[in-house]
Amino acid sequence: MGGSDALQSIVYARGSLRLLDQRKLPLELVYIDIKGATDGWNAIRDMVVRGAPAIAIAAALALAVEVSDLDFTGTPAEAASFVSKKLEYLVSSRPTAVNLSDAATKLQTLVSKKSETAKDAKAIFQVYVEAAEAMLIDDVADNKAIGSHGAKFLQRHLGNSKTISVLTHCNTGSLATAGYGTALGVIRALHSDGVLEKAFCTETRPFNQGSRLTAFELVHDKIPATLIADSAAAALMRQGRVHAIIVGADRITANGDTANKIGTYNLAISANHHGVQFYVAAPVTSIDLSLPSGEQIVIEERSPKELLNSEGGLGKQVAAPGISVWNPAFDVTPANLITGIITEKGVITKSDNDDGAFDIKGFIESAI
Amino acid sequence: MGGSDALQSIVYARGSLRLLDQRKLPLELVYIDIKGATDGWNAIRDMVVRGAPAIAIAAALALAVEVSDLDFTGTPAEAASFVSKKLEYLVSSRPTAVNLSDAATKLQTLVSKKSETAKDAKAIFQVYVEAAEAMLIDDVADNKAIGSHGAKFLQRHLGNSKTISVLTHCNTGSLATAGYGTALGVIRALHSDGVLEKAFCTETRPFNQGSRLTAFELVHDKIPATLIADSAAAALMRQGRVHAIIVGADRITANGDTANKIGTYNLAISANHHGVQFYVAAPVTSIDLSLPSGEQIVIEERSPKELLNSEGGLGKQVAAPGISVWNPAFDVTPANLITGIITEKGVITKSDNDDGAFDIKGFIESAI
Repeated sequence: MGGSDALQSIVYARGSLRLLDQRKLPLELVYIDIKGATDGWNAIRDMVVRGAPAIAIAAALALAVEVSDLDFTGTPAEAASFVSKKLEYLVSSRPTAVNLSDAATKLQTLVSKKSETAKDAKAIFQVYVEAAEAMLIDDVADNKAIGSHGAKFLQRHLGNSKTISVLTHCNTGSLATAGYGTALGVIRALHSDGVLEKAFCTETRPFNQGSRLTAFELVHDKIPATLIADSAAAALMRQGRVHAIIVGADRITANGDTANKIGTYNLAISANHHGVQFYVAAPVTSIDLSLPSGEQIVIEERSPKELLNSEGGLGKQVAAPGISVWNPAFDVTPANLITGIITEKGVITKSDNDDGAFDIKGFIESAI
Repeated sequence: MGGSDALQSIVYARGSLRLLDQRKLPLELVYIDIKGATDGWNAIRDMVVRGAPAIAIAAALALAVEVSDLDFTGTPAEAASFVSKKLEYLVSSRPTAVNLSDAATKLQTLVSKKSETAKDAKAIFQVYVEAAEAMLIDDVADNKAIGSHGAKFLQRHLGNSKTISVLTHCNTGSLATAGYGTALGVIRALHSDGVLEKAFCTETRPFNQGSRLTAFELVHDKIPATLIADSAAAALMRQGRVHAIIVGADRITANGDTANKIGTYNLAISANHHGVQFYVAAPVTSIDLSLPSGEQIVIEERSPKELLNSEGGLGKQVAAPGISVWNPAFDVTPANLITGIITEKGVITKSDNDDGAFDIKGFIESAI
């Protein structure tokens, strides 16, 4: 996936899956063997693998490894039910990630349909494995399309500057996806086009995905880049050093409200205050049309340890013993603070509307 | 200073000064002996002691220790010049801290005047030592007045809620001052008055003054308190869980623009967006009428290590090797985002003006 020298976070061949342990980055490159759904569930829950698209693919492939050579004596219907239950279990590892539950639903439908005609359980597993593998290949293709659409759009809409500086949050790159990335894919595409002046990345507290992972990818790809504390973003914008902010999405609702890593909403408010454009870059699978707005999104809270201890909870105690912690994993950025949503099908904007709202449903229908 | 069981960060008796090494908090209580100006300079530069008022007092007392028993053979004028040069040197340890340079100027003027009448060098040093000691006593008294004015004002202006929840940033408590604190002094006073629902404190990246020091003080004083990541502040405000934000100040200019710990400006923008009141609490010595606005404030940048390594630069490497860093120590919050400035003389507001500006000069003149 990606260029031949690109870092791979998901290393897959039929019957074998290894996930790069992203908790050890950027100083150690350690891969963890995933032998089935249980290993996959643990890896997702413990943040060995993270990023909404990567989680979905890792989960699907974890089960693919388990069933690819499974000695299963049941009927096709029983095999489909086996796959379906394992997928449900995998979804429970990270309930907020819509890509994961979407992928599971799609795969469940597929095997259920196949079970009506399949002659044996093996045929069910075969169709499942092939579908999971296709997800891996399609994800990279989608990300490259996101990068290309986003880079072209920004060049058209930031025409006054010869070069463009972009701030991003969290990690949305090769380490969060099967390769190339979403928001970081746009930055990669701007750099390829020779118009990127600089990429700024936030630390992304409390788990430091920015300083550990995004910074690692930017240095790896020799993209001019500077790391800042999350709380320095407003001061940076005030100095006029950022033309656009591009972030990923965990989930986008029908009206464009976007759940993403905690701190995204902070950045969107600051961008709005400074007149800086604010983009969400995500595959259309991140859009959940069943939710009218962000108010329906349940925000998971993560362990207090991420703030109490250094290294996002893995290091020694830093904070005062006995202090309470509120550690939401995500926040919701309302659509009114978002300039555009960059997808693999194109950029969704508000320009064609009278009411200043996104017409996401219309965009998706016309794009298919 | 403070209550008998209160933590002391500055332990002084004539001829002896010990500073609590705040880099080791909250897990270790280690004091460092300060034998003179050089030790004081290093302690300030290395952030053994921090917080604008505490820095000024620590610097003054460091020199007091040096001269209290000094074998000095020069004239009174030479003694005054000796003190003056040492103070200049101490100011260079933290150039942005206006309290430090103000205190130095005041002490320089004092010894210079005294040198006209003093019969020997010893008399110069005597007057210097007494003045430095008075600063320590006065600082606690001023902070208690800030707390009292602030708590009364908030109760008057947030009358709809029976109890008040406040968010603060960085550390402005007993550990940043000689005792009680400025912004944290207001929180202490609200708690004493029985009207504080909860204090929220930010981590305060990259040096973690919030999670290490403010959280430590809040737990120590049994004040109901919750720690959040800096970037979670906007999400907290959106939930309506904060009635006011109170921060300290490194420097306030004549128009009310306020330089304070990086991230303060971020908070002020979010407060403004959510209609949350935003207060600066600081002694009038933090006000620099010689600067018309925040544009004249030079912002120091601190070591990239604070972001690259864990524990604010003291721990092991966390960020990707080779990444550039922008690490400003402070940002400037423009006066238009500030609801009021809480001082030991009372609260400066915009209410009496037609133009929505602070009349800080008028307030100070009428208060003296």
